[in-house]
Amino acid sequence: MPLTIRFTKMQGAGNDFVVLDGTREPFALSPAQIRRLCDRHFGVGADQLLLVERSTRDEADFRYRIFNADGGEVEHCGNGARCFVKFVRDAGLTDKTTIVVEVMQGLITLTMRADGQVSVDMGAPVFAPPQVPFDQTGLTPRRDNDDDVWPLALDSGTVEVSVLSMGNPHAVQIVASAEQAPVAQTGPEIERHRRFPARVNAGFLEIVDRHTARLRVFERGAGETLACGTGACAAAVAGIRRGVLDSPVAVHTHGGVLTIAWDGRADPQASVLMTGPAVTVFAGEIDIV
Amino acid sequence: MPLTIRFTKMQGAGNDFVVLDGTREPFALSPAQIRRLCDRHFGVGADQLLLVERSTRDEADFRYRIFNADGGEVEHCGNGARCFVKFVRDAGLTDKTTIVVEVMQGLITLTMRADGQVSVDMGAPVFAPPQVPFDQTGLTPRRDNDDDVWPLALDSGTVEVSVLSMGNPHAVQIVASAEQAPVAQTGPEIERHRRFPARVNAGFLEIVDRHTARLRVFERGAGETLACGTGACAAAVAGIRRGVLDSPVAVHTHGGVLTIAWDGRADPQASVLMTGPAVTVFAGEIDIV
Repeated sequence: MPLTIRFTKMQGAGNDFVVLDGTREPFALSPAQIRRLCDRHFGVGADQLLLVERSTRDEADFRYRIFNADGGEVEHCGNGARCFVKFVRDAGLTDKTTIVVEVMQGLITLTMRADGQVSVDMGAPVFAPPQVPFDQTGLTPRRDNDDDVWPLALDSGTVEVSVLSMGNPHAVQIVASAEQAPVAQTGPEIERHRRFPARVNAGFLEIVDRHTARLRVFERGAGETLACGTGACAAAVAGIRRGVLDSPVAVHTHGGVLTIAWDGRADPQASVLMTGPAVTVFAGEIDIV
Repeated sequence: MPLTIRFTKMQGAGNDFVVLDGTREPFALSPAQIRRLCDRHFGVGADQLLLVERSTRDEADFRYRIFNADGGEVEHCGNGARCFVKFVRDAGLTDKTTIVVEVMQGLITLTMRADGQVSVDMGAPVFAPPQVPFDQTGLTPRRDNDDDVWPLALDSGTVEVSVLSMGNPHAVQIVASAEQAPVAQTGPEIERHRRFPARVNAGFLEIVDRHTARLRVFERGAGETLACGTGACAAAVAGIRRGVLDSPVAVHTHGGVLTIAWDGRADPQASVLMTGPAVTVFAGEIDIV
């Protein structure tokens, strides 16, 4: 007997989601069912599945869980969080504009702005190499304003990277042109460089003006994607620390524009605020076994 | 003012389609709208869009048009034809089991079988090299039963291929293992080999037993796909002509099984009949501008 599932397909900066409403009755999907739903030929197709549930915590309005296309549950995703906000408001599940939501690693606060964009508190960046994690043994960084810039030896020569964590590790290099950057050529080598024991997301950042950048990211485990939320945060933070960008920064990616605000010059422990679009693509109904 | 479109997402052997019912009122979609509908992140996502219309010809039950994801209109597609039959029957547009349909190049006959599989008359294969087209200048084929097997010089050495057209050109080689065949390595070189002036689909055929084969195809202009309908026909025909397969042949692809019947030993002008699945994946509604 197949299970009929009503779903909404959404995207934020090109990162796309199958969104399910589990607030009325709970869903218990198997990894195989999640893989099927995310399959682009045999299911709805998405990067991730986003499941909205009631929270058991008083201080939270909702809980949301996010699953990769391979069926595994993962942490908070900035692009998914924005879609979550649009979903619960459009479905009439809340009329709040500021929503506290329970995710795997705690509570996050999301804000629907008057222009329909959603702001997500992405937490504070972490720069200490062991916490990224980044093995700096034997390396001497070059100081560039507030930032340490590290030499990273690649087969094709040495590149200079800012190294930080936004909950996941990032190596950001400033390039003359994001479009012409060797993302496909050097991205895989940076991702698996021995100095990043948990691997790393490789960002290629082009400075357009003090409030505008272009970015491409070779994502850890995924290759180049249309837009990486934490990658946009990491790139903007690196540019601000290196004195070439000022908050807020409009980060242009192939999937759309993400605006990153960070008061890190005044307070290095400040949270990064990411603002961007959340779009409903279509709604549908699917039978799965 | 956005246009609200009701659609059905279908797949046949992994080849997937957005199917629209234009029988009640006509659709006039722009190439940009078709590209959007077929986009896997910003639209429904599909290899092709299939538009069902009323035919203006007395002898046809329907007309169908098929558009690639890039917006261009293309000819008849075997996997799409099967989905078309399931669609018009499920939508209650007909209760016939044999349906004559007008496509770009004429009329085709489609049959819904009792087991839910659909049979498509794919026409007769063509072997004359100039009509494939294949430039055999200076080459001497090896005769293998009823078939000419041609030497094709590649960078990595010479391979032997059967050459035929199923409305589009195919070069089929018999390999020991489809799984281990160098599809990604040699497929692009065969596709653009100078002896195929219109390029070619490169098939890698493994004989399992006289009625069973495994197949991978590097498709012209598309790379390796889950299943290529004309590729399955071409491979089965080549194997039958070379005396290693008997009709009907169950051709196993990554997207599913296609059964190919061909009475070519008795009549080289016989049509190839392809039978395979047609599956409704989900139904939905999308607003497009």
